[in-house]
Amino acid sequence: MGIEIERKFLVTGEQWRSLATSVAEFAQGYLSTVPERTVRVRLAAEEAWITIKGKARGGQRREYEYAIPVTEARELLEELCLQPIIQKNRYRIPVGDLCWEIDEFAGACRGLILAEIELPRADYPLTLPPWVGPEVTDDPRYTNAYLAEHPYQEWSP
Amino acid sequence: MGIEIERKFLVTGEQWRSLATSVAEFAQGYLSTVPERTVRVRLAAEEAWITIKGKARGGQRREYEYAIPVTEARELLEELCLQPIIQKNRYRIPVGDLCWEIDEFAGACRGLILAEIELPRADYPLTLPPWVGPEVTDDPRYTNAYLAEHPYQEWSP
Repeated sequence: MGIEIERKFLVTGEQWRSLATSVAEFAQGYLSTVPERTVRVRLAAEEAWITIKGKARGGQRREYEYAIPVTEARELLEELCLQPIIQKNRYRIPVGDLCWEIDEFAGACRGLILAEIELPRADYPLTLPPWVGPEVTDDPRYTNAYLAEHPYQEWSP
Repeated sequence: MGIEIERKFLVTGEQWRSLATSVAEFAQGYLSTVPERTVRVRLAAEEAWITIKGKARGGQRREYEYAIPVTEARELLEELCLQPIIQKNRYRIPVGDLCWEIDEFAGACRGLILAEIELPRADYPLTLPPWVGPEVTDDPRYTNAYLAEHPYQEWSP
Protein backbone atom coordinates (compact mmCIF):
# COMPACT_ATOMS: atom_id res chain seq x y z
CA MET A 1 0.00 0.00 0.00
CA GLY A 2 1.10 3.54 -0.63
CA ILE A 3 -0.38 6.99 -0.55
CA GLU A 4 0.44 9.11 -3.58
CA ILE A 5 0.65 12.89 -3.30
CA GLU A 6 1.02 14.43 -6.70
CA ARG A 7 0.18 17.52 -8.75
CA LYS A 8 -0.52 17.52 -12.47
CA PHE A 9 -0.12 20.22 -15.12
CA LEU A 10 -0.48 20.68 -18.86
CA VAL A 11 2.81 21.15 -20.70
CA THR A 12 3.16 24.22 -22.93
CA GLY A 13 5.69 24.73 -25.71
CA GLU A 14 8.69 22.61 -26.62
CA GLN A 15 11.31 23.85 -24.10
CA TRP A 16 10.91 20.76 -21.93
CA ARG A 17 12.27 18.45 -24.62
CA SER A 18 15.90 19.52 -24.30
CA LEU A 19 15.76 18.86 -20.51
CA ALA A 20 13.99 15.51 -20.67
CA THR A 21 15.29 11.96 -20.61
CA SER A 22 13.10 9.33 -22.23
CA VAL A 23 12.53 6.52 -19.74
CA ALA A 24 9.81 4.26 -21.09
CA GLU A 25 7.13 3.62 -23.65
CA PHE A 26 3.90 2.45 -22.02
CA ALA A 27 0.84 0.66 -23.34
CA GLN A 28 -1.88 0.68 -20.72
CA GLY A 29 -5.50 -0.24 -20.44
CA TYR A 30 -8.25 -0.28 -17.83
CA LEU A 31 -10.26 -3.08 -16.27
CA SER A 32 -12.12 -0.51 -14.14
CA THR A 33 -12.38 3.23 -14.68
CA VAL A 34 -14.66 3.79 -11.66
CA PRO A 35 -12.85 6.57 -9.72
CA GLU A 36 -13.34 4.74 -6.37
CA ARG A 37 -11.47 1.70 -7.69
CA THR A 38 -9.54 2.02 -10.93
CA VAL A 39 -7.66 -1.06 -12.16
CA ARG A 40 -4.93 -0.51 -14.74
CA VAL A 41 -2.78 -2.93 -16.74
CA ARG A 42 0.51 -1.34 -17.80
CA LEU A 43 3.08 -2.80 -20.17
CA ALA A 44 6.59 -1.40 -20.67
CA ALA A 45 9.26 -3.03 -22.86
CA GLU A 46 9.98 -5.99 -20.59
CA GLU A 47 7.90 -5.39 -17.47
CA ALA A 48 4.20 -5.23 -16.69
CA TRP A 49 2.03 -4.42 -13.72
CA ILE A 50 -1.51 -4.32 -12.41
CA THR A 51 -2.18 -1.15 -10.48
CA ILE A 52 -5.21 -0.46 -8.31
CA LYS A 53 -5.98 3.06 -7.16
CA GLY A 54 -8.63 4.50 -4.89
CA LYS A 55 -10.37 7.83 -5.29
CA ALA A 56 -8.12 10.88 -5.04
CA ARG A 57 -8.86 13.00 -1.97
CA GLY A 58 -6.96 16.30 -1.77
CA GLY A 59 -4.26 15.05 -4.15
CA GLN A 60 -3.83 11.79 -2.18
CA ARG A 61 -4.96 8.32 -3.15
CA ARG A 62 -4.38 4.71 -2.17
CA GLU A 63 -2.28 2.76 -4.64
CA TYR A 64 -1.40 -0.93 -4.91
CA GLU A 65 0.87 -2.31 -7.61
CA TYR A 66 1.72 -5.89 -8.57
CA ALA A 67 4.15 -7.13 -11.24
CA ILE A 68 2.64 -9.61 -13.71
CA PRO A 69 4.07 -11.59 -16.65
CA VAL A 70 4.50 -9.55 -19.85
CA THR A 71 2.72 -12.14 -22.00
CA GLU A 72 -0.33 -12.04 -19.73
CA ALA A 73 -0.31 -8.23 -19.73
CA ARG A 74 -0.38 -8.32 -23.52
CA GLU A 75 -3.40 -10.65 -23.48
CA LEU A 76 -5.19 -8.52 -20.89
CA LEU A 77 -4.59 -5.37 -22.96
CA GLU A 78 -5.76 -6.99 -26.19
CA GLU A 79 -8.65 -9.11 -24.95
CA LEU A 80 -10.06 -7.72 -21.71
CA CYS A 81 -9.22 -4.02 -21.25
CA LEU A 82 -11.39 -1.15 -22.48
CA GLN A 83 -10.45 -0.17 -26.03
CA PRO A 84 -8.65 1.77 -27.35
CA ILE A 85 -5.74 1.26 -24.96
CA ILE A 86 -3.55 4.25 -24.11
CA GLN A 87 -0.07 4.61 -25.58
CA LYS A 88 2.40 7.15 -24.28
CA ASN A 89 6.06 7.99 -23.96
CA ARG A 90 7.33 8.88 -20.51
CA TYR A 91 10.16 11.32 -19.87
CA ARG A 92 11.82 12.57 -16.69
CA ILE A 93 13.17 15.95 -15.69
CA PRO A 94 14.84 15.92 -12.24
CA VAL A 95 14.73 19.21 -10.31
CA GLY A 96 16.57 19.12 -6.97
CA ASP A 97 15.10 16.33 -4.83
CA LEU A 98 12.00 16.15 -6.99
CA CYS A 99 11.39 14.76 -10.44
CA TRP A 100 8.90 15.81 -13.13
CA GLU A 101 7.36 13.02 -15.13
CA ILE A 102 6.21 14.04 -18.58
CA ASP A 103 3.72 11.89 -20.49
CA GLU A 104 3.48 12.52 -24.22
CA PHE A 105 0.47 10.60 -25.46
CA ALA A 106 0.28 8.82 -28.82
CA GLY A 107 -2.49 7.02 -30.73
CA ALA A 108 -6.01 8.13 -29.84
CA CYS A 109 -4.70 10.68 -27.30
CA ARG A 110 -2.01 12.23 -29.55
CA GLY A 111 -1.55 15.96 -28.88
CA LEU A 112 -1.84 15.71 -25.09
CA ILE A 113 1.26 16.25 -22.94
CA LEU A 114 0.97 16.10 -19.13
CA ALA A 115 3.54 16.84 -16.42
CA GLU A 116 3.22 15.22 -12.98
CA ILE A 117 5.27 15.64 -9.88
CA GLU A 118 5.19 13.55 -6.71
CA LEU A 119 5.56 15.57 -3.51
CA PRO A 120 6.74 14.59 -0.01
CA ARG A 121 3.59 16.17 1.43
CA ALA A 122 0.43 17.85 0.14
CA ASP A 123 1.49 21.44 0.98
CA TYR A 124 5.09 21.06 -0.25
CA PRO A 125 6.21 24.34 -1.94
CA LEU A 126 6.74 23.97 -5.67
CA THR A 127 8.50 26.29 -8.15
CA LEU A 128 6.98 25.89 -11.61
CA PRO A 129 9.34 25.76 -14.62
CA PRO A 130 8.39 27.94 -17.66
CA TRP A 131 7.22 24.95 -19.72
CA VAL A 132 4.58 24.10 -17.11
CA GLY A 133 1.10 25.37 -17.99
CA PRO A 134 -2.27 25.27 -16.20
CA GLU A 135 -2.70 22.92 -13.21
CA VAL A 136 -5.16 20.07 -13.81
CA THR A 137 -4.64 18.07 -10.59
CA ASP A 138 -8.35 18.19 -9.76
CA ASP A 139 -9.70 18.00 -13.30
CA PRO A 140 -10.99 14.42 -13.73
CA ARG A 141 -10.71 14.62 -17.55
CA TYR A 142 -6.94 14.43 -17.32
CA THR A 143 -6.89 11.09 -15.55
CA ASN A 144 -5.77 8.18 -17.70
CA ALA A 145 -8.93 6.33 -16.64
CA TYR A 146 -11.09 9.12 -18.15
CA LEU A 147 -8.89 9.23 -21.27
CA ALA A 148 -9.41 5.47 -21.70
CA GLU A 149 -13.11 6.14 -22.25
CA HIS A 150 -12.78 9.57 -23.87
CA PRO A 151 -9.67 9.64 -26.09
CA TYR A 152 -8.16 13.16 -26.28
CA GLN A 153 -8.44 13.23 -30.09
CA GLU A 154 -12.24 13.08 -29.70
CA TRP A 155 -12.55 15.99 -27.25
CA SER A 156 -14.41 19.04 -28.63
CA PRO A 157 -11.99 21.88 -29.43
CA MET B 1 -3.66 -17.34 -18.59
CA GLY B 2 -6.14 -20.16 -18.35
CA ILE B 3 -9.48 -21.10 -19.80
CA GLU B 4 -12.05 -22.30 -17.27
CA ILE B 5 -14.74 -24.78 -18.27
CA GLU B 6 -17.24 -25.20 -15.49
CA ARG B 7 -20.87 -25.93 -14.77
CA LYS B 8 -22.80 -24.54 -11.83
CA PHE B 9 -25.85 -25.84 -9.94
CA LEU B 10 -27.99 -25.00 -6.94
CA VAL B 11 -27.60 -27.39 -4.00
CA THR B 12 -30.75 -28.98 -2.59
CA GLY B 13 -31.14 -30.61 0.80
CA GLU B 14 -28.50 -31.45 3.35
CA GLN B 15 -27.16 -34.77 2.03
CA TRP B 16 -24.04 -33.12 0.64
CA ARG B 17 -22.77 -32.17 4.09
CA SER B 18 -21.75 -35.68 5.15
CA LEU B 19 -19.67 -36.06 1.94
CA ALA B 20 -18.00 -32.64 2.06
CA THR B 21 -14.63 -31.55 3.37
CA SER B 22 -14.32 -27.92 4.44
CA VAL B 23 -11.34 -26.38 2.65
CA ALA B 24 -11.46 -22.64 3.16
CA GLU B 25 -13.32 -19.62 4.39
CA PHE B 26 -13.23 -16.80 1.84
CA ALA B 27 -13.86 -13.09 2.07
CA GLN B 28 -14.01 -11.59 -1.40
CA GLY B 29 -14.86 -8.32 -2.99
CA TYR B 30 -15.01 -6.79 -6.45
CA LEU B 31 -13.12 -3.91 -8.06
CA SER B 32 -15.05 -4.49 -11.30
CA THR B 33 -18.29 -6.40 -11.80
CA VAL B 34 -18.49 -5.66 -15.54
CA PRO B 35 -18.94 -9.15 -17.08
CA GLU B 36 -16.33 -8.46 -19.80
CA ARG B 37 -13.66 -7.77 -17.15
CA THR B 38 -14.40 -8.71 -13.55
CA VAL B 39 -11.68 -8.04 -10.97
CA ARG B 40 -11.94 -9.89 -7.66
CA VAL B 41 -9.93 -9.66 -4.44
CA ARG B 42 -10.07 -12.90 -2.44
CA LEU B 43 -8.76 -13.48 1.06
CA ALA B 44 -8.40 -16.91 2.70
CA ALA B 45 -6.85 -17.49 6.12
CA GLU B 46 -3.26 -16.79 5.13
CA GLU B 47 -3.35 -16.25 1.38
CA ALA B 48 -4.86 -13.69 -0.94
CA TRP B 49 -5.22 -13.18 -4.67
CA ILE B 50 -6.39 -10.82 -7.36
CA THR B 51 -8.32 -12.62 -10.06
CA ILE B 52 -9.33 -11.18 -13.42
CA LYS B 53 -11.91 -12.93 -15.55
CA GLY B 54 -13.27 -12.24 -19.01
CA LYS B 55 -16.83 -12.81 -20.18
CA ALA B 56 -18.01 -16.42 -20.13
CA ARG B 57 -18.64 -17.81 -23.60
CA GLY B 58 -20.20 -21.28 -23.73
CA GLY B 59 -19.02 -22.09 -20.19
CA GLN B 60 -15.46 -20.92 -20.96
CA ARG B 61 -13.74 -17.75 -19.82
CA ARG B 62 -10.26 -16.27 -19.60
CA GLU B 63 -8.85 -16.17 -16.08
CA TYR B 64 -5.72 -14.60 -14.63
CA GLU B 65 -4.76 -14.90 -10.97
CA TYR B 66 -2.01 -13.22 -8.95
CA ALA B 67 -1.08 -13.76 -5.31
CA ILE B 68 -0.95 -10.55 -3.24
CA PRO B 69 -0.01 -9.83 0.39
CA VAL B 70 -2.77 -10.64 2.91
CA THR B 71 -2.52 -7.22 4.61
CA GLU B 72 -3.05 -5.45 1.27
CA ALA B 73 -5.98 -7.73 0.43
CA ARG B 74 -7.59 -6.78 3.74
CA GLU B 75 -7.18 -3.05 2.92
CA LEU B 76 -8.53 -3.54 -0.59
CA LEU B 77 -11.57 -5.41 0.76
CA GLU B 78 -12.27 -2.81 3.45
CA GLU B 79 -11.46 0.39 1.59
CA LEU B 80 -11.79 -0.09 -2.16
CA CYS B 81 -14.05 -3.02 -3.05
CA LEU B 82 -17.81 -2.79 -3.56
CA GLN B 83 -19.66 -3.27 -0.27
CA PRO B 84 -20.88 -5.52 1.24
CA ILE B 85 -18.11 -8.00 0.51
CA ILE B 86 -19.01 -11.66 0.03
CA GLN B 87 -18.29 -14.22 2.74
CA LYS B 88 -18.53 -17.93 2.08
CA ASN B 89 -17.33 -21.33 3.19
CA ARG B 90 -15.94 -23.63 0.54
CA TYR B 91 -16.22 -27.40 0.66
CA ARG B 92 -15.00 -30.13 -1.69
CA ILE B 93 -16.56 -33.42 -2.73
CA PRO B 94 -14.27 -35.47 -5.02
CA VAL B 95 -16.02 -37.81 -7.49
CA GLY B 96 -13.67 -39.90 -9.61
CA ASP B 97 -11.28 -37.60 -11.47
CA LEU B 98 -13.52 -34.63 -10.88
CA CYS B 99 -14.22 -32.53 -7.83
CA TRP B 100 -17.34 -30.64 -6.79
CA GLU B 101 -16.79 -27.32 -5.07
CA ILE B 102 -19.61 -26.25 -2.79
CA ASP B 103 -19.93 -22.63 -1.73
CA GLU B 104 -22.13 -21.98 1.29
CA PHE B 105 -22.62 -18.23 1.51
CA ALA B 106 -22.77 -16.25 4.75
CA GLY B 107 -23.49 -12.62 5.63
CA ALA B 108 -25.62 -10.76 3.08
CA CYS B 109 -25.87 -13.87 0.86
CA ARG B 110 -26.78 -16.35 3.62
CA GLY B 111 -29.14 -19.07 2.39
CA LEU B 112 -27.47 -19.57 -0.97
CA ILE B 113 -25.50 -22.77 -1.63
CA LEU B 114 -23.88 -23.33 -5.04
CA ALA B 115 -22.06 -26.35 -6.46
CA GLU B 116 -19.50 -25.93 -9.23
CA ILE B 117 -17.53 -28.47 -11.16
CA GLU B 118 -14.58 -27.88 -13.48
CA LEU B 119 -14.58 -30.10 -16.56
CA PRO B 120 -11.79 -31.24 -18.89
CA ARG B 121 -13.86 -30.09 -21.88
CA ALA B 122 -17.18 -28.36 -22.49
CA ASP B 123 -19.11 -31.49 -23.57
CA TYR B 124 -17.67 -33.77 -20.85
CA PRO B 125 -20.40 -36.18 -19.63
CA LEU B 126 -21.47 -35.53 -16.06
CA THR B 127 -23.49 -37.68 -13.66
CA LEU B 128 -25.38 -35.49 -11.22
CA PRO B 129 -25.48 -36.55 -7.53
CA PRO B 130 -28.90 -36.41 -5.79
CA TRP B 131 -28.04 -33.26 -3.81
CA VAL B 132 -27.49 -31.32 -7.06
CA GLY B 133 -30.48 -29.18 -8.06
CA PRO B 134 -31.21 -26.95 -11.07
CA GLU B 135 -28.31 -25.90 -13.32
CA VAL B 136 -27.52 -22.18 -13.23
CA THR B 137 -24.34 -22.13 -15.37
CA ASP B 138 -25.80 -19.53 -17.72
CA ASP B 139 -27.81 -17.55 -15.15
CA PRO B 140 -25.84 -14.33 -14.55
CA ARG B 141 -27.52 -13.82 -11.13
CA TYR B 142 -25.51 -16.66 -9.65
CA THR B 143 -22.14 -15.11 -10.44
CA ASN B 144 -20.32 -13.74 -7.42
CA ALA B 145 -19.91 -10.46 -9.29
CA TYR B 146 -23.71 -10.10 -9.52
CA LEU B 147 -24.12 -11.14 -5.88
CA ALA B 148 -21.64 -8.42 -4.89
CA GLU B 149 -24.13 -5.82 -6.15
CA HIS B 150 -27.32 -7.75 -5.37
CA PRO B 151 -26.88 -9.71 -2.12
CA TYR B 152 -28.96 -12.90 -2.08
CA GLN B 153 -30.79 -11.86 1.11
CA GLU B 154 -32.28 -8.91 -0.83
CA TRP B 155 -33.62 -10.97 -3.76
CA SER B 156 -37.42 -11.03 -4.08
CA PRO B 157 -38.86 -14.40 -3.04
